[in-house]
Amino acid sequence: MSDPALPVPASGVYIGAVHHFPIRVYYEDTDLSGIVYHANYLRFMERARSDMLRVIDIDQRGAIESGEGVYAVAEVNIRYLRPARLEDELLVRSSVTALKNASCTIHQEIWRGEELLIRADVTAAFITLDGRPKRQPAAWMDAFRRILAG
Amino acid sequence: MSDPALPVPASGVYIGAVHHFPIRVYYEDTDLSGIVYHANYLRFMERARSDMLRVIDIDQRGAIESGEGVYAVAEVNIRYLRPARLEDELLVRSSVTALKNASCTIHQEIWRGEELLIRADVTAAFITLDGRPKRQPAAWMDAFRRILAG
Amino acid sequence: MSDPALPVPASGVYIGAVHHFPIRVYYEDTDLSGIVYHANYLRFMERARSDMLRVIDIDQRGAIESGEGVYAVAEVNIRYLRPARLEDELLVRSSVTALKNASCTIHQEIWRGEELLIRADVTAAFITLDGRPKRQPAAWMDAFRRILAG
Amino acid sequence: MSDPALPVPASGVYIGAVHHFPIRVYYEDTDLSGIVYHANYLRFMERARSDMLRVIDIDQRGAIESGEGVYAVAEVNIRYLRPARLEDELLVRSSVTALKNASCTIHQEIWRGEELLIRADVTAAFITLDGRPKRQPAAWMDAFRRILAG
Repeated sequence: MSDPALPVPASGVYIGAVHHFPIRVYYEDTDLSGIVYHANYLRFMERARSDMLRVIDIDQRGAIESGEGVYAVAEVNIRYLRPARLEDELLVRSSVTALKNASCTIHQEIWRGEELLIRADVTAAFITLDGRPKRQPAAWMDAFRRILAG
Repeated sequence: MSDPALPVPASGVYIGAVHHFPIRVYYEDTDLSGIVYHANYLRFMERARSDMLRVIDIDQRGAIESGEGVYAVAEVNIRYLRPARLEDELLVRSSVTALKNASCTIHQEIWRGEELLIRADVTAAFITLDGRPKRQPAAWMDAFRRILAG
Repeated sequence: MSDPALPVPASGVYIGAVHHFPIRVYYEDTDLSGIVYHANYLRFMERARSDMLRVIDIDQRGAIESGEGVYAVAEVNIRYLRPARLEDELLVRSSVTALKNASCTIHQEIWRGEELLIRADVTAAFITLDGRPKRQPAAWMDAFRRILAG
Repeated sequence: MSDPALPVPASGVYIGAVHHFPIRVYYEDTDLSGIVYHANYLRFMERARSDMLRVIDIDQRGAIESGEGVYAVAEVNIRYLRPARLEDELLVRSSVTALKNASCTIHQEIWRGEELLIRADVTAAFITLDGRPKRQPAAWMDAFRRILAG
């Protein structure tokens, strides 16, 4: 995929300590009430969290394949303020609000231009592949701390 | 589908004021970490809430098609305690904890036998099809009150 | 879950060589055009195929966890004849039409009462967990042959 | 979203008559066998088809909201050649292979670099919102013909 004429998947960027990730709404995301199905915003937020790791070179797939461990969502508190609709362009803004040895908490908001649609706090725990809590890899902690320092 | 030899979709039951709804976990529900993807428990809980209405003869599809209105999820607070896996049989237990003119709050738990996997509180607002808050239909409120009375 | 008062997930049945599996349509299955999103019928058909195995005591999850192997879909040819809608009760009828050492082909139809909505042929290959073709377990082949014999 | 520092969602491009659309694979797309769940490639291909329309200024959402009509998938024939995995970057290549008054057929392939993963033909029919076949809008037909002419 090195041909410069070919398009590439969306990628987020950190602006200071806040990660910004773009989403477009497709048919699959909506339901018959005409708006995005409520559970799908959690998918959007997970894409953004995966991108938060990817752009600082944390290799989630490698960590699973080597047996190192994986993040599992432990808690979500989400408020739905306004609905998103087909073809909307959204921006997920994410920032780490708490960093512990075996978990981290991320505040996430979904915006459409100047309108705030979704506000959520998500806690993810790092676990072994058979489900026990585990310290996050030291290199990952360091990467998070550099982000938090802005 | 009146042939008695043919199987029918799962249906929930109220035991007192608590609605019980069964779910089996399929491939589509899991992700590569081997467990159910976190957003999919919200789908399980929505199936249970739809069934809470269906078994007391509230016609959600009719309310949408006639333009009366629709429920929209306004808030979810969810704790993931233990993961579910492929082919698990789960039971979603749901009970109304607050009933207002234009919204209701439901406590939902997902169990696998004696193990509690998920605990959540979900608030749904009744809205017009163009998104404004609206009183829930009086007959629906009455039906909820009868359930709450046990 | 041994309490007889508690509801259980839907289960399919074989009538002769044809497996019958019931589905109810939920919000998550629809899109803003008001009908079931086209990719979701593939999920319905996969639930039915998993149930075809489950009811004859083939343990897919055990086969994955022990490293034995897994089915991977190799080909789907599907015709969408009529749409399904929210709260429809559907019946997936499935029958094995070809059984080879490392794959099988299944004809699947989705009905709503007397109306045929979907007609499809699905070929699934048995593979190792790293993706190479593999003979289906002998006990599974025997079970399929007993079904085919009616 | 006019701030040039903010990232935007992925957009496809036509190279000659072939539309190219990029996808990244997320957790939600995979299942416990470690690869993308088979039905999700249909979601990827639908995103690409929606983008085929969007980049030539066809307004699907407007056509639904004004009651003009909507595309419904009528037939899919898909071959799964190689699996995609978490974090893969994919490219969906789509080209119109038949254009009739009320339907069109699109050949779609999904590539990962030099590897062909998926090959499919999809026929979509244009229908009224209550489900009857309808001629595609003349301006849309003209836009397709310009694409087909290269």
